[in-house]
Amino acid sequence: MSTDELISQIRKKKSFLCIGLDTDLTKVPPHLLEDADPIFAFNKAIVDATHHLCVAYKPNTAFYEACGLKGWEALSRTMEYINSNYPEILTIADAKRGDIGNTATQYAKAFFEDLSFDAVTVAPYMGRDSVEPFLKFRDKFTILLALTSNPGAFDFQTKTIEGKELYKHVLETALTYENADRLMFVVGATKAEYLKQIRAIVPKNFLLVPGVGAQGGSLEEVCKYGLTRDVGLLINSSRGILYSSRGEDFAAAAREQALQLQQAMAVEMGKI
Amino acid sequence: MSTDELISQIRKKKSFLCIGLDTDLTKVPPHLLEDADPIFAFNKAIVDATHHLCVAYKPNTAFYEACGLKGWEALSRTMEYINSNYPEILTIADAKRGDIGNTATQYAKAFFEDLSFDAVTVAPYMGRDSVEPFLKFRDKFTILLALTSNPGAFDFQTKTIEGKELYKHVLETALTYENADRLMFVVGATKAEYLKQIRAIVPKNFLLVPGVGAQGGSLEEVCKYGLTRDVGLLINSSRGILYSSRGEDFAAAAREQALQLQQAMAVEMGKI
Repeated sequence: MSTDELISQIRKKKSFLCIGLDTDLTKVPPHLLEDADPIFAFNKAIVDATHHLCVAYKPNTAFYEACGLKGWEALSRTMEYINSNYPEILTIADAKRGDIGNTATQYAKAFFEDLSFDAVTVAPYMGRDSVEPFLKFRDKFTILLALTSNPGAFDFQTKTIEGKELYKHVLETALTYENADRLMFVVGATKAEYLKQIRAIVPKNFLLVPGVGAQGGSLEEVCKYGLTRDVGLLINSSRGILYSSRGEDFAAAAREQALQLQQAMAVEMGKI
Repeated sequence: MSTDELISQIRKKKSFLCIGLDTDLTKVPPHLLEDADPIFAFNKAIVDATHHLCVAYKPNTAFYEACGLKGWEALSRTMEYINSNYPEILTIADAKRGDIGNTATQYAKAFFEDLSFDAVTVAPYMGRDSVEPFLKFRDKFTILLALTSNPGAFDFQTKTIEGKELYKHVLETALTYENADRLMFVVGATKAEYLKQIRAIVPKNFLLVPGVGAQGGSLEEVCKYGLTRDVGLLINSSRGILYSSRGEDFAAAAREQALQLQQAMAVEMGKI
């Protein structure tokens, strides 16, 4: 997918919502557990109910791996379903992988080729040769962790190196990687005030922002500092949408939550 | 597995060799490709030929994920085979995972419960709450990346924060995590001279050292700076052992390479 195609989808839907498909069998409606593949059944219902309100789906691989082979099969079926029925939607493997060149290439194959994702999240700790094998895929996006939304982000990411926090070094260094135009960055919404400084370093790249809602971030704050002329944001919500009801109406309830976010996003886009 | 059990196995075998099961179908002997599960067939032959010479097997998950569902099935079968036939051997999922608490718990379940690994490698970038969910498994080991063996390690890991390199902050901070006695650390062998300073910070924890052989590290150098009274090292070799022959004799050739490393390790252990 090209950046222009993504922007065009965002403008058409008046939405920059990404829905995190962090499907947890202990939280899905109990009646789905009778299905032969409850993870896929849940995902399919959520996708069918929300595809017109969001521009991206982001399954976090941990939830699928925790279910073993059945989990990978459900992830694979989910990807086939989205790609067949809603090919305009950006699919992000939230995998946070990071390994040496030779091995990073294997991960890139796993997510970009075998599972046909449009994008994958990657961890920066191992540096250039752990990121560039993903960037070699010119029609895919590589989404690098910069500043995450969890408490542990303060252990290392915000430590100062030569007068500048580590996450800023990550942003600056990553811009020197080959095919850096295919980079997006993960920036947690719980730190909206950081976005101003981040935008000074990466004025154009899309930012994937988790942590609006359940983790306490404010949509308005994030947009105030993070929006660009081309929007430049993907805001993720997972639990707040997926588990708003555990009854038969779970998909309708999810749609309602997604609609509220989409409407708030349309308002923010009106301010650009 | 307890640390004492690991040390006892090391003393008995006079080996601290870890064999990296980075099984790549483009590199395995061509005759194996006729097998219904060539990855498992290769792994089984390697394990049967080398189990008495090594104390750990470390499949890198990237190679399995790149093969999709078949890859995960082969990984699962490999784990069942090792655990059933050679239960004394430490099994390490080289997964380099790292995610927020809730999600890290799912990864811990995937590797420790679903696949029954004894250990998993974890990335430090997201800090405490991305590591402690693994450490909660008191009979498992969590192996944190500190200083890796690839060129990209110099992008961030060796940058100086308050007079000290980032990887040293990772070591020091990790020692404050709950259940830090279950931590091991990844330290690349291409930087053996760093091991002296690392040992000053973590005098007791086991270090998992990749990069001897193919990546240019020297066993003697690593042992000079890294060995403790209880050995305290696991030295990994992958390609150098796995792919020493592409003929029918591949397993015997792998055994021969493993034997050479084991004999060199026995000499080093004699110096303790």
